[in-house]
Amino acid sequence: MEFKVIEGGGITTPQGFKAGVAQVGIKYQGRYDLALVLSEDSATGAGVFTKNKFQAAPVLVSRQHLASQDKVRGFVVNSGCANACTGEEGLDDALMMTQVAAEVTGYRTEEFLVASTGVIGIPLPKEKVRQGIIEAGKNPSIKAGAFAAQAIMTTDTVPKEIALEVEIDGKMVILGAMAKGSGMIHPNMATMLGFVTTDAAISKDCLQKALVIANTDSFNMVTVDGDTSTNDTLAVLANGLAGNSLIDNPGSRDFQIFTAALQKICVYVARMIARDGEGATRLLEVKVVNSPSQEDARKAARTIVGSNLVKAAIFGQDANWGRIICALGYSGAEFVPEEVDVYLGELLVAEKGRGLVFEETVASRILEKDEVVVTVDLHAGKYVATAWGCDLSYDYVKINADYRT
Amino acid sequence: MEFKVIEGGGITTPQGFKAGVAQVGIKYQGRYDLALVLSEDSATGAGVFTKNKFQAAPVLVSRQHLASQDKVRGFVVNSGCANACTGEEGLDDALMMTQVAAEVTGYRTEEFLVASTGVIGIPLPKEKVRQGIIEAGKNPSIKAGAFAAQAIMTTDTVPKEIALEVEIDGKMVILGAMAKGSGMIHPNMATMLGFVTTDAAISKDCLQKALVIANTDSFNMVTVDGDTSTNDTLAVLANGLAGNSLIDNPGSRDFQIFTAALQKICVYVARMIARDGEGATRLLEVKVVNSPSQEDARKAARTIVGSNLVKAAIFGQDANWGRIICALGYSGAEFVPEEVDVYLGELLVAEKGRGLVFEETVASRILEKDEVVVTVDLHAGKYVATAWGCDLSYDYVKINADYRT
Repeated sequence: MEFKVIEGGGITTPQGFKAGVAQVGIKYQGRYDLALVLSEDSATGAGVFTKNKFQAAPVLVSRQHLASQDKVRGFVVNSGCANACTGEEGLDDALMMTQVAAEVTGYRTEEFLVASTGVIGIPLPKEKVRQGIIEAGKNPSIKAGAFAAQAIMTTDTVPKEIALEVEIDGKMVILGAMAKGSGMIHPNMATMLGFVTTDAAISKDCLQKALVIANTDSFNMVTVDGDTSTNDTLAVLANGLAGNSLIDNPGSRDFQIFTAALQKICVYVARMIARDGEGATRLLEVKVVNSPSQEDARKAARTIVGSNLVKAAIFGQDANWGRIICALGYSGAEFVPEEVDVYLGELLVAEKGRGLVFEETVASRILEKDEVVVTVDLHAGKYVATAWGCDLSYDYVKINADYRT
Repeated sequence: MEFKVIEGGGITTPQGFKAGVAQVGIKYQGRYDLALVLSEDSATGAGVFTKNKFQAAPVLVSRQHLASQDKVRGFVVNSGCANACTGEEGLDDALMMTQVAAEVTGYRTEEFLVASTGVIGIPLPKEKVRQGIIEAGKNPSIKAGAFAAQAIMTTDTVPKEIALEVEIDGKMVILGAMAKGSGMIHPNMATMLGFVTTDAAISKDCLQKALVIANTDSFNMVTVDGDTSTNDTLAVLANGLAGNSLIDNPGSRDFQIFTAALQKICVYVARMIARDGEGATRLLEVKVVNSPSQEDARKAARTIVGSNLVKAAIFGQDANWGRIICALGYSGAEFVPEEVDVYLGELLVAEKGRGLVFEETVASRILEKDEVVVTVDLHAGKYVATAWGCDLSYDYVKINADYRT
């Protein structure tokens, strides 16, 4: 399997996808804050959503539309207002967003998904949003894909988009993605907004299956602050324009290739989210190897990457491996403490559960880098998991001490 | 039941307890960092310990001594080095601490408990610690109880001690306590070092039962940063000098009174720990009321008080109740989202799961205070739980970015 990253690619790189954007001024001024993404041909859709008991209105509407329709046409997203904890009125507003998207494009309401991100508990400025969707729907273009990635940002410092190419059934299939972070990021689906488009031909069942698999070891392995939001959404649209024969058997080789490509693009975007976590100065990647089970490996990796004490040590470039061991110890993963090795980069800092004497200067060089890799070897099996996060900096506190006002 | 706080009281306020301290210079210079606490008469002992899979050497030794002995005499504690992840050598060192305590006081090794707090993974400076215990054991006094509370501090900014009085069986029984925080504080026992002394007469079984009950809704409801340490210990010694008839029936009224008093003193100390969490500028108290079960109430309260986003909002005096709702939503507690009310202090900010319009100036006055109380009413039952934590400040990051070096 070979995946080729398409330079400068994004959500409109696969065949038949276009985007439109608008400056609504919901919260942010002088920037795009609303995006509409459309498929020329009707597309298969799939989604995974937050497990938070408080589900934002757009999550409820998108779930319902996906469940009731065989095909979808596109999705509409706004930033600045989460439309969460907004009651019946919020549900009406989310539904209105899909209605206006349908009116302006000439398709049906139920063919649109909707997502929102921003402050919880304030009502959507209806009229502004309605006008914005009308504007975004007027002249959708391929070029506006990059603007769509900007429009969905909140405290993100960079837009997150990518596209890649893979051969399936002798055809070049393209996948494009955009996502936004960067607070309230934590495992348990989907921990953010993520959208994938592809020109692959694939059945609805297979697309949903592939998405669940791809999500598990990508978005669900990212944590910025341990908070699972009310709005998390990862949706994928597949319009079939690549011309491969329909993938409708989850046992097939084509399904495997597509799922691997989908996971690949999700990992790319998930890493971008971790790297751009609120206040982050560096990416933290934690690999747990030789675990007795897949779930133990995931638990251990996620717990370590999510530990405030580990994150603060990485920010301070302090080789405090004791905190890694400590987080592993309360992760709930199965292992024998006296068997555990810990590496910072390539440097072995603890062996068989005990600290080693190591060169602080060597450790410092590893911790200075933009990306810090921690490897924990449990010596207890054959399973592996990787989790991504970021350091905990003064700026995280600054951003979150005064987000709403 | 009436409990009277004894002004200026602490670990040596109950009859028959004395302390000795020393300046060993393990990590900190020019301050006490080693304490020995003794009971004149032999005492009943009980303990609860960390659930972290990596258990520090002193935890293993204390567990073993408690299990093998009917009576104990005292405990020895050092700060600056956790003696965790230190292998066989660490176990020898922890045992040595109890041996030296026994030699200098004339009792048996197994009659002593031991606890350590500080950096993980570095060996204890044996000779220094040995000399320190000898010094601490020379002239134990009641007065040194306050110094013992200082000796066990790490990043704590204030010593934590208290004593209270309660009448049992017509006798005045005194309980004294000291504890240290203030990072790596999180539910799942015991999340710190805590020591309680009392002159109550109580059987070993009853003392252990009372401690488990008292711990559950005190220390286990405190979280500073979500990290459960390798060294957490809460131990209690009861020497019987108050002269009450032996409490040996967990169904008795006396047991109830003693347990309530023990819980009371644990809550006092637990709140002190939360209030002095690393970098904290204010105490955060989260009450969950009308929960369908005790465990749901605890889960919800602990999750909210532990949310980085909630903590950062409290630091920023931002009435961002959406984050409280969000944390409640991923807590795993059972409730109906559309029934939930949220209060900041006395101010209702969300009703039936929806935001209310409220006076920001009123909210600001509540959030300016030293102690912020959040109440979440689930309207789903009759159970109540309270959890304590603190805000997330720049100083938390500062302290933990460079703790080890």
